[in-house]
Order: sequence, then C-alpha cells, then structure tokens
Amino acid sequence: MESKSSGPSCSGLNLVAHPRAKSKVWKYFGFDTDADGCILHWKRIYCRVCMSQIAYSGNTSNLSYHLEKNHPVEFSEFVKSNTDQMREAFATAFSRIKTEPTSLHAQQQSQDINLRQSLDYENRRHNDLTIAIVNFICEGLYPASIVEEPTFKTLMSTVDPGYSPPSKSDLAVKMVPQMYCRTRDTVFSELAGVVNCGVTTDLWQSQTQNRTYISLSMHSVNYSCATGFSMTNKCLKTFEVQEDNTAENITRAMYEAFVEWGITHKVSGATTNGSVDIVKACSLLELSVEMPCLGHTINRAMDEAFQLPRVDSFLGCCRKLVDHFREPAMYMLREKQKQHGLAQCALITDRGRTWLATLAMLQRLKEQQAAVTSTYMESSSSHHFSSDGPNWALLEALIEVLQPFKVVANMITSCRYPTISMVRPVLHMLLNTTLKVKEGDLKEISMTKEVISKVLSSTYSQNSQLSQEISAFLNIATFLDPRYKKLPFLSTQERSKVESNIIEEAKAILEKQMSERSCDDFSLVSDEPPSKKPAPLRESSAGSATQDNPLAAIFCQSDADQSQEELHAQVVEELSNYKSQRVLGLNEDPLLWWSSHAPLFPTLPKVLQKYWCVPATSVPCHRLFSSSGAVLCGKRNRIAPALVDQQVFLYENSRSYFESEPCEDDVDNPWEGHCALGRPLE
Amino acid sequence: MESKSSGPSCSGLNLVAHPRAKSKVWKYFGFDTDADGCILHWKRIYCRVCMSQIAYSGNTSNLSYHLEKNHPVEFSEFVKSNTDQMREAFATAFSRIKTEPTSLHAQQQSQDINLRQSLDYENRRHNDLTIAIVNFICEGLYPASIVEEPTFKTLMSTVDPGYSPPSKSDLAVKMVPQMYCRTRDTVFSELAGVVNCGVTTDLWQSQTQNRTYISLSMHSVNYSCATGFSMTNKCLKTFEVQEDNTAENITRAMYEAFVEWGITHKVSGATTNGSVDIVKACSLLELSVEMPCLGHTINRAMDEAFQLPRVDSFLGCCRKLVDHFREPAMYMLREKQKQHGLAQCALITDRGRTWLATLAMLQRLKEQQAAVTSTYMESSSSHHFSSDGPNWALLEALIEVLQPFKVVANMITSCRYPTISMVRPVLHMLLNTTLKVKEGDLKEISMTKEVISKVLSSTYSQNSQLSQEISAFLNIATFLDPRYKKLPFLSTQERSKVESNIIEEAKAILEKQMSERSCDDFSLVSDEPPSKKPAPLRESSAGSATQDNPLAAIFCQSDADQSQEELHAQVVEELSNYKSQRVLGLNEDPLLWWSSHAPLFPTLPKVLQKYWCVPATSVPCHRLFSSSGAVLCGKRNRIAPALVDQQVFLYENSRSYFESEPCEDDVDNPWEGHCALGRPLE
Repeated sequence: MESKSSGPSCSGLNLVAHPRAKSKVWKYFGFDTDADGCILHWKRIYCRVCMSQIAYSGNTSNLSYHLEKNHPVEFSEFVKSNTDQMREAFATAFSRIKTEPTSLHAQQQSQDINLRQSLDYENRRHNDLTIAIVNFICEGLYPASIVEEPTFKTLMSTVDPGYSPPSKSDLAVKMVPQMYCRTRDTVFSELAGVVNCGVTTDLWQSQTQNRTYISLSMHSVNYSCATGFSMTNKCLKTFEVQEDNTAENITRAMYEAFVEWGITHKVSGATTNGSVDIVKACSLLELSVEMPCLGHTINRAMDEAFQLPRVDSFLGCCRKLVDHFREPAMYMLREKQKQHGLAQCALITDRGRTWLATLAMLQRLKEQQAAVTSTYMESSSSHHFSSDGPNWALLEALIEVLQPFKVVANMITSCRYPTISMVRPVLHMLLNTTLKVKEGDLKEISMTKEVISKVLSSTYSQNSQLSQEISAFLNIATFLDPRYKKLPFLSTQERSKVESNIIEEAKAILEKQMSERSCDDFSLVSDEPPSKKPAPLRESSAGSATQDNPLAAIFCQSDADQSQEELHAQVVEELSNYKSQRVLGLNEDPLLWWSSHAPLFPTLPKVLQKYWCVPATSVPCHRLFSSSGAVLCGKRNRIAPALVDQQVFLYENSRSYFESEPCEDDVDNPWEGHCALGRPLE
Repeated sequence: MESKSSGPSCSGLNLVAHPRAKSKVWKYFGFDTDADGCILHWKRIYCRVCMSQIAYSGNTSNLSYHLEKNHPVEFSEFVKSNTDQMREAFATAFSRIKTEPTSLHAQQQSQDINLRQSLDYENRRHNDLTIAIVNFICEGLYPASIVEEPTFKTLMSTVDPGYSPPSKSDLAVKMVPQMYCRTRDTVFSELAGVVNCGVTTDLWQSQTQNRTYISLSMHSVNYSCATGFSMTNKCLKTFEVQEDNTAENITRAMYEAFVEWGITHKVSGATTNGSVDIVKACSLLELSVEMPCLGHTINRAMDEAFQLPRVDSFLGCCRKLVDHFREPAMYMLREKQKQHGLAQCALITDRGRTWLATLAMLQRLKEQQAAVTSTYMESSSSHHFSSDGPNWALLEALIEVLQPFKVVANMITSCRYPTISMVRPVLHMLLNTTLKVKEGDLKEISMTKEVISKVLSSTYSQNSQLSQEISAFLNIATFLDPRYKKLPFLSTQERSKVESNIIEEAKAILEKQMSERSCDDFSLVSDEPPSKKPAPLRESSAGSATQDNPLAAIFCQSDADQSQEELHAQVVEELSNYKSQRVLGLNEDPLLWWSSHAPLFPTLPKVLQKYWCVPATSVPCHRLFSSSGAVLCGKRNRIAPALVDQQVFLYENSRSYFESEPCEDDVDNPWEGHCALGRPLE
C-alpha cells in the first residue's frame, strides 16, 4: 500500500490537498499535479513529510495511520488540531442559530448537518476527555484508581453528564500500557544517535507499599548543526530492589536496561547517591566512573553536622523558641515587630528537617531578633532559655556557614546546562573559604565546619580506590568549561596533568574514529544519523571533509597510517587553540559557547560529550533542594506496583528535567510559619 | 427583611409559586393566596421550610441567601437542581436547531434568547466547574496545588478551553475555608442533640512533611422516632502533635476541641491506639473509659508474633520462595499448575507487611503446593531451601492460627452498626479456641499462640489500673446486644455483677433526668430537639408522658420525691423484660432490634447510647485491615500543613464512615503477584 516514490524526485512533485478536503490530515498529504495544477492520479497521494507514495481509496484513515506509524510529532500535531477543529465546528454550529437567517429548506439541511456534527462532536469530545484523563494520570503521576473515586466521578459528570470516564482496569491494562509503548518508541528513536551517555540511579521508597525502587535515567549532550549542543535526559526503567543479593540484582536489572535500550557500550559513567549496593553494581558493570551525587553529599554532610550534640541542642532551643511564638505569643510578637519596625511575618519552623529549612528558620529568627527578644523577655514561659534567649552569636555564625551552601544549591538548581564542570570549583570554594576554621570561631562552629569538610572531601577525594579517577574526571570536565578552564585551584603541575589527560582522551577518540572508518570502508557513512555528527573537521586537519570526497574510498586507508606524531600535534594544536579563546564570564552559558565554536574544534567537543553527559547530581536538583522532591514522593507513594515502571517512565519523560512540582507550602499564609522552601530556588 | 410569620398559622397559608417563576428556588418559597387562589401580597413571600416571611423585591437572590443561611440541605439540593436546569436549558437550545421550524421573526427572538442563555450558560457552567473542582479537592483530599499542575490544567482546558480553574491561592485562602465553615455549621447543628458521645484519636504521620498529627472524631448513637437508632461519626479536628510535653499538648488540644464543639460533658469514653501520650491525655481529661483499639491490638499482636525468630526466618523462606517464582521460574510454575490442574495464578508476596498480606501469601502457597514443590525440585537455584521446600506443616498450622483473625477482621469491617458489643465475645473466642495451645502443636505454633494471647489479654485485662473499668464497660456493652445478652462466657456471679452494674447505670440516668427536670421546671422542654429525644416512656412508669400534660408543672415535683425503691423496681422490671425477649441470631442487626423495641424500654436505650457510642476501633476498620488505609496515607501525605485541619475535616465528613478508598492493588493483573488485600473485606 505504501512505497517510496520512485517516480519524480521530491522537488519535482507539486502537491495539492484534496479539493474537498475536510480532515486536517491533508495538511500532511497531497496529490501530485501537472503544470496546470490538475491532479495527475486520484488514487495516489504523497506524504509531505517523507515523500512516500500512499494508495488513496477515498477515506483518510490510512493517512492518519501512516502519520501515527512514521511521524509521531506530526501525528500528535494532527490529533491536537483535529480536536481544535471539532471545537470550532461546534462553536460554529452553535453560533449559527444566532446569526444565520436561512430559508426553511436550507435550515432543514443545516439541521441534518448539525445533527451529524453534534453526534460526531459527542463522540470526539468524549474521546478527547478520555485522552485528557489518561494524560492527567500518566503525566501527572496519579494512580489509575483515581477514576473510581466518587469525587473524581462527580467532577467528570459536571464536565459532561453523558460522559463516563475509562475504568481503572481499562487504564491499567490497556491505556497506560499503550501510552507507554508509544512513548517508549519515541524515546528509543531519540536515543539512537547518542554516542556517549551517563546514567543516574534514583533510589526511592514507597512507604505505603513498603517497597524500594531504583529509577534509572540516561543523560547525554547531543549536537546538531541546526541547534548546537543540547542536553537529553530520559528515564529508562524503574525496578524494585530485592532484599537478597541486592547488589547482584541491581546489576542484573541495570544491565538488562542497558541492553533493552541499546546503550551498553555508550555508558561513560554513573552518578549515584553512593549507597553501597549501587556502587557495587556500578563496579560489577565496569562503568569507568561512579560519580557521587553532589546534592546527596551536601545533604548528608549537613545531617552529620546537625547531629553534633551541641549543634543539635542549640537547634532544639531554636525550634522551641519558634514553637513558643504560636498563639497567643504570636500576637505579642506582632506588636513588637511594629515597635521595632520589622517585617510583619511569622517565625519559620524547620519541620521538614532539611538544612535549607533550618537555615530559613535561623535567618528569620535573626531578622526578628529585636522583636523576639523583647517579646520573650516579657513573656511568662521563658524557662526554656537563658535570660537572653538563644545564643545569638552562634546563630549568626551558623547562618554564615550555611548561607554559601544555599547559594550553591540555588546556582546548580537554576542552571540549565550540565553542572558537572561546576563540582570541582564549588568544592574548592566551600572547603577553602566557607569551611576553613578561623581563629575566634566558636567551638560549635569549628566542629561543624570540620564535620562538613570531612564528608565533602572524603566523598570526592579519599574515599574509594576510584578516587583518583573521580578527581581526574572532574578536572577534565572543569577544564572543558570555558568559564573555568584556567583551573586556578590546581598547581601548574596538576594543570599540565589535566591537559595531558585530555590529549590522551582526544587521541583515543580520533584513533577509534579512524579505525571504525577503515573497518567500515564499504560504507563511509557512520552509524550516527547526520544530525548527531560532531562538528565538521577543519580543512587543515587530517581526515577532514574526506567523507564527501569521492576519492576518499581510495585515500581513506592513509588515515589509518597517519603517524601518532601527527595525531598528537593535531590535538595539541586544538587544545592550545581552545586555551587561547576568551575566558567566559561566570554567568555565561558554556554550552552556548561550544555550540557556536564547534566548527573550530574537531575533537574537543567529543571529549566534552563524553564527560559532560555524567550529571553532578543523581536526581534533578530541584528534588534535592526544594519541596518538589517531597511532592514527588507523595505521588510515587500512591502508584500501584504493577504500574510503577510504566507510570514513572511516562511521568519523567513527559516533563522537562528542570520542571519541578508545584509546592504544597503555605506560601499564601505568611503567619502559618512554614518554610516556603523551593521558591527562591526556582 | 425576614421575620417569623405572625399572621395566619402555618397550616393557614396556601402558598403558590411565582406565576412566571423561572428559578428553581421557587420550589422552597411561595406567595400566600386567598380562597380563590389569588396572591394576597406581591411583596411578601414565605419559606416553605421554616414558614418565615421574607420580603420580595422582584429578584430571587435573597431567597437563595435565605436557603443558604438557614437550610443547608435544601440549599445544596437547589444548587444541584439549578445545575441540572442549566444543562437542560442548553440541551433544549441545542435541540431547537434540529426540530423547530420557525418563522424569521420568531427565529430572531429565539436568537436573542439563545445568546443570553448561552452567556448565562457559560457563566453558570464555569461556576459549576469551579464548585466541582473545589469538591474534588476537599472531598477527595487532594492538595490545592493540583490546580497548578500542567496536566490538570490541560485536562480542564480539554473540558472547556474558555474556562480557567481557580488558583491555588484562591482555593487555600478563600474556597476551602468557606467550604469548611459551611460544613462546620452543618456538623455543629447535627451535634446539638447528642447526649453521649465517644471520641477516637487517629494518630498519623505525614512523612513528607515530617509531622505527626491527631485527628479527633466523635461518635454517637442517636434516636429519632421516624428512623430509630442510627450512628453518627464526625471528624472534629486535626492538630499537630508537639514534640515537647506531648501528653499535655494533646490534652490541651483535645480539651479545646471539646469546648469548641460543645461536647465537654457529653464524652463518655475514648478509643485510642494505646500510645502512651494519648492514654495520658485521656486520663488528664478524666474520661471515664479509655478503650484500646481492637484493630491496632490485633495488628500489634501479629507484629510481635511474626518477630519470633523462628517464625521470622520461616516467613523469610516463604518470601524468598515467592520471589523465586518470578520470570523465568514463573513460566515453569505455570506449566506445573496445568499439570496438577491448579488455578493459573501467581504467588502472592506480603511486601505490604500486614498480617493479612502474610496470610494471603501463605494461603496461596498452600493452594499451589503441588506446583511449587515440583517446579522447585527441578529448578537449579534450590539452595535456599531444604530439599522439600518450606516446612509445609508449619505453613498449614500458621494459616490455621491466622485465619480466624481474618474472619474477625472481615466481620467487624463489614459491620454497619456499633461493634463495641462484639469485642468481648471475639476476644473470648480467640483466646479460648484459636489461641489455645494444643498437644501436638509445633513449637513455633505454640509460641505464636502465646505471644498473640499475651498481647490481647494484657491490653484488655491486666494492662492498666483501668482494666477493671474496661472489662466492666465491655460486659455491659455486650449484655445490651440482644444477640449476646446471655453472656455465656461469664460465670453466673459475673453475669449478675453485670446486671447490677446496668441497674446502677440506669438508675443514675433516671435520677439525673429527674433532677434536671426539677431544676429546669420553668421550662419543661428539654435541651434536646424533639427528634433526638429517647424513646417515649411507658405509661406505667413514673414520669411518663408528663411533658405533654399541662398539669405537669404542678405534679412534676413529685417525681423527685419518688423513692429509691420505686426507681430500682422500675429498672429491674425493665431489665427482666429485656432478658425475656427473643435472643437475636448472630447475623441480625441489633440496632434495628432496638429501633423497633425502643417504645418498650424507657431507660435501657439511654444506657445503650452511653456505651455503644464508644467505638471498638480508633479508626474505621477498613483502614486497619485493607489497603484503604495506605491509600489514605498517601493522600494525607500531600496536604499542606496550613490546610490539614480543614481538608481532613472536609474529607472525613463528606463521606460515609464505612466508605473505603478504591485500592491501588493490581487486581487486574493476577500474574503480578501482589496481595489483593481489601477486596474480600468490602
């Protein structure tokens, strides 16, 4: 029924839509016409997307089938426009009563049309509603059983009394799996051109189901001539963590996912939360780099610091103080705020128990110190504290330690390009400035700094036998960032080590490329689709532009003979060119720079793709540093085990990696006194 | 504007609706008419519900205001019918195109009407949608932030592209609080007539918010002549449990709720999960009975039994066995099932870790023993077990111990009347039959029985200093159940003790009643509204029917002089009458019996109301014994702290006490192997 057009070349076709076309599907198909615009063959049409020729029998169903099968983007566009069209048709039909004076005969006709349209409308509208509900459940991560809740049923019958939503069983057995298959195919095709990818493991628990899961995601930095470099982040699979032989089972599940998604030989590293079993699985899988998650590491460091007995008891005091300023003491505080000209706001509790919430609590207390102290001195129940309230000096000093971490959290959360290059500079800054013990530091503060320092440095430097590799990996990733390439925190010796590492890496990539080319010499076209090919090589460099040259088949072999010295010289030249470029400002976008400079660098962007595909955190930052993570936990908790893989897959892949959940904090009620976490981070 | 009609008596009014009435609100109002049916006053109308006279100015908005303010039931009925009417109007307008041939002039007119109707329709429809969303959020316990989720927005724009849902802030600050106030007023009026009530405390945690809450509910057995006895269950308040001075803070919060809801002197007992702080709070509040929750007690007993080292390791083996029969061993099992003619179903895991899930796992293993054993013997990875697989004898014996508990769970979950009378018989049955250690019991089984027995009996009999009171309370509650009144598990001596307790209780009630009547002699009408009054007294008994007798004011004093002997004789007679009645079958409804026999018993129903208002479990049974509880946890977890009290209140009071959440179990995928808990219980 369908075949590649063997007749006139694509450009030779002069396509027109069906003259009586009603369906919007005709936007994507047409009949060929002669010079006078007359249709040549009434039973033969062409797809405007792929120029395939398709048989036409008078109805359009095989046209939409062709779109669905071959052009998912166009198909979804068509479905959407179709919906809009139906709405328009209805609106028109309805408005006709108001505006069109018609004769009795014409009216009879229009009645028939309207009757038909109204029935069509009913069917299509119900179909639209069902699709919207399926999307709501899949992309919103709601349990299928929501359709059985009386309140949801009531909502839907208000929407349309004649409509009955799909059943839970239809959703679970048919609709969600169908949507999963469609999305899986799309993701699969998106992954085809990826050369290197990083993977992340998100370990999470469903408390209501008493199950532990890992959601495995892949990340890559892709290149297309048209749009430059961009990041791809896809969720691949969610699997349950078995209680026995945990590491082995995780290894098997991850390996199966690698095979299923065809990325076995593409994974250049993994970022994990550092749990023993996952680390072991990564080593069994022989992943070259197992990167600790920066967010988890910072959170863990804070947890340990806050457990220091003196810090713990101090924070306990602060919490009691905040709790004290509920009604009726709240009203006294308000009065004092007016007297002292302070902002009229409630104190903040850190019930969420994240360090960001604790910081917010301390900062608010500091802001309101005058009001708090004077309310408190007049208040009766002052037995919790010494006469002056909490140790304000300690409070200030703690804020000073925590504040830079909040800045870092905001920085990496708001960042829309890979953050792996930021890890090394950030760690250096924290360890050598924020966490440096100073003379005059309170005992509690120096201990806090030491505990945090220890967690950070042991995780990234001295922890495992892989530490050297992690350190070398991070240095290369940082050097490839035109903002940080000066590596000011390394010694000259260390810097030249980084450069020689990069040279080795680049040479290896070039060699591999050439060997693949010579092995593959019956076909000069690489496996990668054109859009994913790295930047075109410069004319001066070896192997450049040969692919388009018809003589390449003869001279190609000489590439393989190219001596190591030539290769080396080429890479060194490229590196020195990179170093001589302008250093970017700290707030400039390095990926944008690389996109516009890709044509200048034949090899380095490939190294970049290999290193920058490994993320700095194992889950999107907003989940680590804002209430978005808690909202997601709440949603995941409700998903049935049988659907968890498909539903998490659909949820994750239907949204941007950077899109956080709307928060549940009480932002509209400043006097409720909860920490409006997350907002400043977005 | 509004005043009690002082003119003609209610029955004298002959109300008619407005002759050109369009609004359905006229169902509830009318004009008075003369003998010829002519309207007497065009500016004066009457409410058909309360017969108030209301000024009428030509629009109906003050009529609906009157309904909203005074007659919530009618108001909601009106709102609903109004919605239906709009739908009808729309349907009619739309069908007119198809059926009505009209002249040009008439058509012009109808266009105008349709235009207006269509605008009205838009407004009303958007209003309906907003109401439905607010209800969905409040009655479905969804976070207000759902309206900010892109997928929900998409669903709503599919429903109606011109409609924009309310904002999260509107919901949190305006709509939810409004709905809370309305519902609170309704609940408040329902509580007015309650004489005795029990309270329950539901202690729960929001893991994502790291907060612990208590939801306080009240329960009562009410009587009305028309419908007999019925149960009322209302959620009153949800408050956060403070970490410091926990018991004192709970006491304060509970006391405040008692005062707020006017039940301080009506609470006759509390049912709690037995947590130390709550028990202490109940004793600080001087509640006469602090009843342990039967469901929590059984669950705790099972937990302890399953932690016995030998039982724990046996269950561990079973879990491994079940885990083993995933792919590919699953396919082998399927083959063996065919061979042995067994049901084609997966094994069941007890990941949910409730004892009911464990029982389901064991039962499925037992059913599939033949297939499991033979698959297993051929399978390679048999190193987990001895050559015969698990200890099948132990498995069977464990099922035998657990099964009666499941029967009990089903029994009290499916029960639609108070279950407090069931507690004593159930405990007796379990302790003396199911849990009796028999000769030949496996060591593991005898230990299991002992552990469970110990938890049950210590909780209900020997635990606290209040144990005597609990025991006496349960005996009275059981005796008042016409199914159990023979008390076969008590000695003759114990039985007569129960009877004398009841006689004392009944006498106390009668005395209190009479003293109130004599104190209150300026008004013979009791505080209770007529519908809540207990059964009318028999003519032969003292104080009977005096309320309607105009001579009561003179003769009433003599009631107080009635001698103790007379009182005693009266109560004894009533008791002996009760004992002589037919014993009900075990599956008959005791509340129905009491409803039909209330006229025979002047005092006992009051004792019944005092004892049966204390529930057997601290939360609805389906939450303890099915996955409904887990679903609820998931929902509660997402609610913002500032709205938790109002949202839980609205959720609980908008649904039947017995209505469970649709479960998330994978009922449609038998091969997924999860325990379809909850279904058999419903």
